[in-house]
Amino acid sequence: MHEDQLLRRIADRTRALAGRGGVEIGPGDDCAMLRVGAGGQLLATVDHLIEFRHFEPGTPLDLVARKAVARSVSDVAAMAGTPRWALATGAIPADWPQQRTEELFDAMHRWAEGFGCPLVGGDIASLPTGAPLVLTVTVLGEPHPSRGPVRRGGARPGQGVYLTGAVGGSLHSGRHLTFQPRVPEARWLADELGARLAAMIDVSDGLGRDAGRLARAGGVAIELNERAVPRHPDAGPTFLADGEDYELLFAAEGPVPDLCPATGTPITRIGTVAAGSGCVVVAADGRRLPADELGWDHGGGGIGANNPE
Amino acid sequence: MHEDQLLRRIADRTRALAGRGGVEIGPGDDCAMLRVGAGGQLLATVDHLIEFRHFEPGTPLDLVARKAVARSVSDVAAMAGTPRWALATGAIPADWPQQRTEELFDAMHRWAEGFGCPLVGGDIASLPTGAPLVLTVTVLGEPHPSRGPVRRGGARPGQGVYLTGAVGGSLHSGRHLTFQPRVPEARWLADELGARLAAMIDVSDGLGRDAGRLARAGGVAIELNERAVPRHPDAGPTFLADGEDYELLFAAEGPVPDLCPATGTPITRIGTVAAGSGCVVVAADGRRLPADELGWDHGGGGIGANNPE
Repeated sequence: MHEDQLLRRIADRTRALAGRGGVEIGPGDDCAMLRVGAGGQLLATVDHLIEFRHFEPGTPLDLVARKAVARSVSDVAAMAGTPRWALATGAIPADWPQQRTEELFDAMHRWAEGFGCPLVGGDIASLPTGAPLVLTVTVLGEPHPSRGPVRRGGARPGQGVYLTGAVGGSLHSGRHLTFQPRVPEARWLADELGARLAAMIDVSDGLGRDAGRLARAGGVAIELNERAVPRHPDAGPTFLADGEDYELLFAAEGPVPDLCPATGTPITRIGTVAAGSGCVVVAADGRRLPADELGWDHGGGGIGANNPE
Repeated sequence: MHEDQLLRRIADRTRALAGRGGVEIGPGDDCAMLRVGAGGQLLATVDHLIEFRHFEPGTPLDLVARKAVARSVSDVAAMAGTPRWALATGAIPADWPQQRTEELFDAMHRWAEGFGCPLVGGDIASLPTGAPLVLTVTVLGEPHPSRGPVRRGGARPGQGVYLTGAVGGSLHSGRHLTFQPRVPEARWLADELGARLAAMIDVSDGLGRDAGRLARAGGVAIELNERAVPRHPDAGPTFLADGEDYELLFAAEGPVPDLCPATGTPITRIGTVAAGSGCVVVAADGRRLPADELGWDHGGGGIGANNPE
């Protein structure tokens, strides 16, 4: 089961919707965008967080709650939007004491409020003892007021390809539990670059795979320079595929600052958009490797599936 | 673990939000209502559908998909709103072939479109083999254009209490898989009655329990006349507690038609709002039974938990 295939299938079915029924952006981007009332625009996204799959048993509940909310918030950041509200669901193993469930929902509430999108609704239900905890968080947000939503498909030949922060080793280091969704960075980029901010995605499934998605959505080729990619000091050689980085990967026209002043987050040029298709990584030794297959897919495997260290 | 307790806890934490940050209705009603842009209003709700809990293994996928969507659509109906868009998640046991997952999402897509709220986003992830299928559906909608959202808390002494359709035996008969969310009925009631349509809820956890919620939200008492409650011919003596009926229970001032002409759905007066608190059922033999405890709670048990037949 491949999420990409399935999402494309859903997107195909819904393509006819775009522009109809208030659907300004349908499935296939980081968020949908909907037209509400006269001129209101709403971003909407939902993500899972599943025990064993996205966090190990024994992870402090506060960090579980944080990651559940932060993943969806990151999808809003990827459109350069601002999170406003959230709805959370929890399917809870039957042997959890009520206090533990309350602690989890209190923490989700706190983190949602902290990320600017307080919980306005939700649902809980019980699972058999021994089943994994299954959370979902829907986040609703607003697109950037002047730039509008930054989509995946806007990359054009000649543009630079940029990354906020650094990638690699997120799972082993625990950063996948504590990452800061790049909401202020994305908003600032949209403020600064306007329409020059051409395309954006958050890096959840590995830089290589997500760069491949950016290329495919834009109908262009992307060439990444492996040596230029900032990696965390504790990242291993699979840093291009590790996933769970939640950094912003974007294509932009013209000059791009190398730092977001409000947060101090570095911004690094790591490649170039070209005519053609697919994403290629130019390795340190000069080899050219297809990048699309470096990442990992939500559908299969578990934590560290493509992270063999 | 009691969902009511937990939702009240979330509602307590979020009460301060009401009127702030665009939150016009926070947690604790059938939907949240949010202010989007200049004057746009959005209803938002999310519900689970879990194997063993909400449907038995072996249920045709088309009916699983239908119920997953219909449950959330029914929450929008309970506010007299119109469903517009949906987002669906599926946590799928690892041994499902991809074709089965596709079939499920295709069916959710079809039903969402059929109920007027096409899927604009979603997420899939895998669960261990043997875990139950866990679906969630978020539905976004619009409140009634003139009446606005019909809340749970508007019942006032002297009003009548009404029910669409009939209750009881939903699980055993299979109606819980094929019920028609009462969207047109709710909209028509709001058209016809305007502000006289004082309070409404959909009956998911048993008529007695949901009437208790209506009473509590309004700070009033509700007296139900057991003999007046329309029951399905196949319903047993627990019809007031069976749950999963997804009919509308509402309080209204003045005369109420006994039929929704567009759908032919009967509307029956089943009780009265009074001063005081709690909900009492006046049984056929004249006994007065507290109704709040007749229903069942999402948190515990399984299908038929309070349905001992």
